[in-house]
Amino acid sequence: MGALVESSIHCSVQALVERDERLARRVIEDEPKINQMQLDVDSRATRLLALNQPVARDLRLLIMALKINTDLERIGDLASNTAKRALALISLPQIKPLIDTPRLASLVEDMLHRSLDSFVNRDAALAEKILTDDDEVDDLRDAIYTELVAMMQTRPDVVEPAINLMFVARNLERIADHATNIAEEVIFLVSGVDVRHSSPSGKHQ
Amino acid sequence: MGALVESSIHCSVQALVERDERLARRVIEDEPKINQMQLDVDSRATRLLALNQPVARDLRLLIMALKINTDLERIGDLASNTAKRALALISLPQIKPLIDTPRLASLVEDMLHRSLDSFVNRDAALAEKILTDDDEVDDLRDAIYTELVAMMQTRPDVVEPAINLMFVARNLERIADHATNIAEEVIFLVSGVDVRHSSPSGKHQ
Repeated sequence: MGALVESSIHCSVQALVERDERLARRVIEDEPKINQMQLDVDSRATRLLALNQPVARDLRLLIMALKINTDLERIGDLASNTAKRALALISLPQIKPLIDTPRLASLVEDMLHRSLDSFVNRDAALAEKILTDDDEVDDLRDAIYTELVAMMQTRPDVVEPAINLMFVARNLERIADHATNIAEEVIFLVSGVDVRHSSPSGKHQ
Repeated sequence: MGALVESSIHCSVQALVERDERLARRVIEDEPKINQMQLDVDSRATRLLALNQPVARDLRLLIMALKINTDLERIGDLASNTAKRALALISLPQIKPLIDTPRLASLVEDMLHRSLDSFVNRDAALAEKILTDDDEVDDLRDAIYTELVAMMQTRPDVVEPAINLMFVARNLERIADHATNIAEEVIFLVSGVDVRHSSPSGKHQ
């Protein structure tokens, strides 16, 4: 599920950069598969909880799987939404550079990849590192917004594509938030310490 | 927690409509309380799972509480973000009508209120009704977007406030998605049938 979600993000941004309509449509078609996986993981975790009545760390692991499952499904939604924005952008005149969108995307993809790695390897140190990356994502998104607003104020013809790009940046920033959630869960799992809502970077949205 | 979240949404929109800076700041200050409640509910549900090892419907109820808890915390984030947008809008020249934002807000508030009612009363019929409301929310948000884009294309001076309003509409639409999630969970709890990802209106984002 993590792999499919990662690939969806990557392809949605690729579709945008290369103006590849077919690739965008593939991401949109893959979303129901991710949704189905969410239902499967949910029902398997619930069965395990019911049948094995785990305690302590096993219990935390299962609850965490349920939470990460929700995060991954939402990321799938955001990738699909990005692919829809890519389709809209392909149909509009190209506003030359995509600003820093590809850079933001690669930062976010990397965060998600490492957060999933930290889960698989129970690596709290790796997870910690991800929490600070989120600030960089927010800064980059702010820079993209500022540039797009300035563009729209001088060229009414770029309003529509610029708005689509703005929502792409927002989707990517929200994916980074979900990666941060996953990292926080890993830290909780490994250390038993709940860092949600405590670090300045550990913020949703 | 539900009551505080509902009040935050209401006040964030009120702050926007009445250009009331103090009210907006109150919503932003209340967010940490909602976050703390999320941590409390999470740890209480986890303890109950560990100590009482519930099965069947009780197990479903606890897992559901964990999920609704996440939805409510995210709604708290969105209300706080709306309050920040309200502050930004207050500092900018007023673009006359707020389009259909207040109508969208009241629709969304009503959905959330009923979804929480359906949870408290285990009322699957009430929950079903909420799923169809989500389409109306999406239509209204689309209408707001279209109107704002048209405005921005003709008046460069409204670009900034219009973008802030656009994100407010997006926040409200996402709150409606969370209310829909809650309703879907209630239907699952009561009937044992998982309606997520099956109805055309049962869509996130």
